[in-house]
Amino acid sequence: MSIITISREFGSGGRELGRKLAERLGFEYYDKEIVNTIAKSKGLDAAYVEQALEDREWISMPVTFSSSLTADLGVRVDRVELLRDQRFVIEGIGKSGKDCVIVGRNADIILKEYHPFKIFVYADMEHKIQRCLDRAPEGEDFSRNEIEQGIKRVDKARARSRKIVSGRNKLERTDYDLIVNTSDWNIDDLVPAIAEMAKSWFKNKSE
Amino acid sequence: MSIITISREFGSGGRELGRKLAERLGFEYYDKEIVNTIAKSKGLDAAYVEQALEDREWISMPVTFSSSLTADLGVRVDRVELLRDQRFVIEGIGKSGKDCVIVGRNADIILKEYHPFKIFVYADMEHKIQRCLDRAPEGEDFSRNEIEQGIKRVDKARARSRKIVSGRNKLERTDYDLIVNTSDWNIDDLVPAIAEMAKSWFKNKSE
Repeated sequence: MSIITISREFGSGGRELGRKLAERLGFEYYDKEIVNTIAKSKGLDAAYVEQALEDREWISMPVTFSSSLTADLGVRVDRVELLRDQRFVIEGIGKSGKDCVIVGRNADIILKEYHPFKIFVYADMEHKIQRCLDRAPEGEDFSRNEIEQGIKRVDKARARSRKIVSGRNKLERTDYDLIVNTSDWNIDDLVPAIAEMAKSWFKNKSE
Repeated sequence: MSIITISREFGSGGRELGRKLAERLGFEYYDKEIVNTIAKSKGLDAAYVEQALEDREWISMPVTFSSSLTADLGVRVDRVELLRDQRFVIEGIGKSGKDCVIVGRNADIILKEYHPFKIFVYADMEHKIQRCLDRAPEGEDFSRNEIEQGIKRVDKARARSRKIVSGRNKLERTDYDLIVNTSDWNIDDLVPAIAEMAKSWFKNKSE
């Protein structure tokens, strides 16, 4: 079984890279599916689960239930509990034995026994801001400064989750096999070369 | 003109990667040639120049001259002066306009106006030690611990040189385009994929 994990800075194009890499290699692609599974099992709204996993003021946010039947206003969902649920879902993906790309969610740590090809994607702040601006939905009107603050907040929340999942404080270079700066690249041009690299990685592994 | 620079941790295989990458792409390869040029212009021994540029107790080392005619025992060569000489040689390579791979020597900083493809190569300490042991000349008999200390010393000296050349204290991720962990790879398997990536980089750049 071949697993590629992609950790990333917010706004660096890691999700796009993961999706296209999976497409090119004919692998399964897991990202939002993981959140949807948790949300369904908990009867929670997927957007809420995503926000609670990644976000900042999550403690002060009211829980919005996806089903009005289970509506029970005032309940708070514990982030650590969600991270545990997420771990179970990701372990299930590992057990399924399918070749796949998983974006984020500390899958590299959770699935380390499967010896995944571990990629980290980053970029200059300017490029990340521009990427967010280019992809903003119609009508969204954040300043560059607001976007920069948002990027930093999400990355901080992700670092906290990583700390909870890994039990370690620091991001280490040796946690990854390949670290890519997407600043001066179209993701489309990166995909074939990284696919090549992944193939060579899995070939090496199986020898 | 296409320039690839390879910065690396000692023992990570960066030099081998650089040489083979140049071979595959049909680029010039510069590494020891740079030191030889400096040594020749100064009438110094190349091994001494290399040591003075990278090393630890260089201050207490006597200068060994390559030519007995210029022998002038007791003279000390200033590392900052050697770094300046090295900069001139590397700037000359840039001006020559040749496609090339340059390993180490902060060429990424010195040649930044040419927009090189900047690679950093690293590995786990265990793999670096093993690599050094595998490549040790006949009769050399260092313990793993001695090798680890040596690796750390050289990397520290390189970091000091980088500080002198760049004027900055910290190694930043955004200084590089691609950061590769060679721990679980044969360099030979990495070369085609990185060559592919470099080609895509230079194609992007020229568009």
